[in-house]
Amino acid sequence: MKPESYAKPVIKMTEWEKSESGPKETARVEAFSDGVFAIAITLLVLELRVPEVKGNERLLPLLLHEWTSHLAFVIGFFTILVCWINHHYMFEHIRRCNGMLLLLNGFKLLVVSFTPFATAVISRYIGTIHQQTATNLYALNFFLMGLAMTGIWCYAYQNEMTKSGSPEFLKAVNQLYIFAPIISGVILILSFINIWICLTLFGIMFLIYVIPKKSAARLEKWKHVAS
Amino acid sequence: MKPESYAKPVIKMTEWEKSESGPKETARVEAFSDGVFAIAITLLVLELRVPEVKGNERLLPLLLHEWTSHLAFVIGFFTILVCWINHHYMFEHIRRCNGMLLLLNGFKLLVVSFTPFATAVISRYIGTIHQQTATNLYALNFFLMGLAMTGIWCYAYQNEMTKSGSPEFLKAVNQLYIFAPIISGVILILSFINIWICLTLFGIMFLIYVIPKKSAARLEKWKHVAS
Amino acid sequence: MKPESYAKPVIKMTEWEKSESGPKETARVEAFSDGVFAIAITLLVLELRVPEVKGNERLLPLLLHEWTSHLAFVIGFFTILVCWINHHYMFEHIRRCNGMLLLLNGFKLLVVSFTPFATAVISRYIGTIHQQTATNLYALNFFLMGLAMTGIWCYAYQNEMTKSGSPEFLKAVNQLYIFAPIISGVILILSFINIWICLTLFGIMFLIYVIPKKSAARLEKWKHVAS
Amino acid sequence: MKPESYAKPVIKMTEWEKSESGPKETARVEAFSDGVFAIAITLLVLELRVPEVKGNERLLPLLLHEWTSHLAFVIGFFTILVCWINHHYMFEHIRRCNGMLLLLNGFKLLVVSFTPFATAVISRYIGTIHQQTATNLYALNFFLMGLAMTGIWCYAYQNEMTKSGSPEFLKAVNQLYIFAPIISGVILILSFINIWICLTLFGIMFLIYVIPKKSAARLEKWKHVAS
Repeated sequence: MKPESYAKPVIKMTEWEKSESGPKETARVEAFSDGVFAIAITLLVLELRVPEVKGNERLLPLLLHEWTSHLAFVIGFFTILVCWINHHYMFEHIRRCNGMLLLLNGFKLLVVSFTPFATAVISRYIGTIHQQTATNLYALNFFLMGLAMTGIWCYAYQNEMTKSGSPEFLKAVNQLYIFAPIISGVILILSFINIWICLTLFGIMFLIYVIPKKSAARLEKWKHVAS
Repeated sequence: MKPESYAKPVIKMTEWEKSESGPKETARVEAFSDGVFAIAITLLVLELRVPEVKGNERLLPLLLHEWTSHLAFVIGFFTILVCWINHHYMFEHIRRCNGMLLLLNGFKLLVVSFTPFATAVISRYIGTIHQQTATNLYALNFFLMGLAMTGIWCYAYQNEMTKSGSPEFLKAVNQLYIFAPIISGVILILSFINIWICLTLFGIMFLIYVIPKKSAARLEKWKHVAS
Repeated sequence: MKPESYAKPVIKMTEWEKSESGPKETARVEAFSDGVFAIAITLLVLELRVPEVKGNERLLPLLLHEWTSHLAFVIGFFTILVCWINHHYMFEHIRRCNGMLLLLNGFKLLVVSFTPFATAVISRYIGTIHQQTATNLYALNFFLMGLAMTGIWCYAYQNEMTKSGSPEFLKAVNQLYIFAPIISGVILILSFINIWICLTLFGIMFLIYVIPKKSAARLEKWKHVAS
Repeated sequence: MKPESYAKPVIKMTEWEKSESGPKETARVEAFSDGVFAIAITLLVLELRVPEVKGNERLLPLLLHEWTSHLAFVIGFFTILVCWINHHYMFEHIRRCNGMLLLLNGFKLLVVSFTPFATAVISRYIGTIHQQTATNLYALNFFLMGLAMTGIWCYAYQNEMTKSGSPEFLKAVNQLYIFAPIISGVILILSFINIWICLTLFGIMFLIYVIPKKSAARLEKWKHVAS
């Protein structure tokens, strides 16, 4: 990262270079990210295996028997969906883009594209004696996702790459995203103790972050009432 | 959902928040949905296995022998295509977007991304004694798809998120989409009785919903004649 | 299709319905099609299996031994690429969209998404005694692709859905696309006689259709010289 | 390619043909390319297999045991990401498009879509006696990627298809991309000697090309200082 800051004072930005920070740049980052989100969310279905009926067995019990796969499919789906909703929400408020933001977004997409694997592991081992380790891996994935999400927002916010808005609201959005890795960090620690508390906290995080606009507004209000 | 309505009267919408309901938001929802539709429709091909020729066998009979896979591929393809045509048609008329609509759309995409699995099951078990259960699963998937489609439209219509149009036409579109889960619910029930009646009704639904604009126009006309 | 024409004279098109034929509709058809093309072209790589080295074997000969897979990967890739270039070229000149065009485009995408399977079959059986049948399947896929391509253009051209341009050029484009299913039909017939002639003709078609604009211009010129 | 140049002096470009070189054409090339990049980068996850726990084994050691897969996943991910960043950067500066550029871009996408296979091979054989060959294949893939990247830029630059900018900066960008296949060619040769030097050079190339704008600016400055 040193070379970047090193070059800054020497080279004056030409008109041409400045024009790169236009709306088109963010548009293509969003399009590429949408592609990765859409593929990761759809690849989850590849973990659902068609059961092989043998002898006198019937198909329905075999389908129902794989309920953990189906549950993991739904959990994985909504994890990535909420992640996309927040990515979408952030990039609505980010007007500029640079190399560092592309890298942070790249890290985010790395975690997103890893999610089908973490989902496959939990789907395979939940209900077995290995479910502890599988949940740890999933919670780690979740924590890294929260961290990446927060990284993107905080970098953009501190470098004044966000659109102008009321400072109070922007601050509330910022706090909302600082909470994300904290809560998911707690979930990661709890995943070593009890997986059912974890799943409950996953659900609560889902309810908060599925509606980021409302959650930020509510956070702003609470602070207003408290002060 | 309670917290959302709870926050409403207290926080006044800032200019910035209002601007989120612009054309860009719907654009990215459509782009993400298009990605999921495109991937789900293309993943169907992964169910087609290259047959392994053994001994004195010939390739052609082996390819023809797997006609159920190929039929399921075509049925799955057109199911998702019609679904996309209607999604496309709806979002042409929806001008605003909020958290609830994103969730309803997410449910829709969940069903779409489940379709390759339902198709794989029917492809594996049609022509066997397990075809009844496989058809039930497919009809259930179809019913949920109709329900999700209708959920999106009705929510947008009742919350005045649709573009302005002649009230009669909007009402006809609305009725068209209320029919969808009703017909597919009937198909689901019939799938427990006779799978061939089901397949015929699938075909009729396809003919109605592949051309949503015309079907809505025809519905409007019939009501006009009847009254 | 009867019901469509039936409804036409009775219902007058509202302003709202007319507005559907705007630029946005074609944009989303193109985006969805791009998604399917991009996925089909990338799924080809899944046919390349990592060879399993056993005993004293070395990796390089094993990789080279699977040259047919790699050749099929490249052929499949360029088949879909040329197909995309022409799809792109056509939709540059198509300004309106309706239900029938969506269906024709859907048929096109069905063939595109089937291509990875046809490629997998030829990749598995070329160089074996089953290569004849594998080539037939590939040529059939190729013929249907040409037919679908031509169907889209001819429908749009005859229904005056193309952008205004010089009538001579439009006619040349039309003739270029009428040739596509004819040449690929000949290739299909020849695939039952000699597969190497087929592959040569595939190459020539590739050279013509990889640059549709130039090919149409050349066709226009030849006709001008001849007359 | 001969026929193209042949047709040029005879046919005068109509208004209609000229209009094809508008912003829309590049937009769709970028959208299609984004799709291929997004899919290739997400398909990497399919190489991560869920380990099968047997007898008294525990899950964690098995997951850690497959660290080569996970390392290859991360390397493959960042290879494609850097490639996308540069593709994005180039196409920001390319304003026109023609058949040759579509072909060069097609070759680029061929290499991109081959990357998951090269990654799978290195993931399977690193740490074994076959790692030499696997690294050669990966370095070859890397070299072709550099070559394709450079091909696109040089073709666009020499044919004046780039946007207007300061000539010095454009020249620096040009030199940056001429270095790419040279460095990756050196890496390819070194891959036959020592794979760890290779991996180090991969890392250095990554640092240079992950921030193409800064790297071009720095190159321009160095030349300025030197002269």
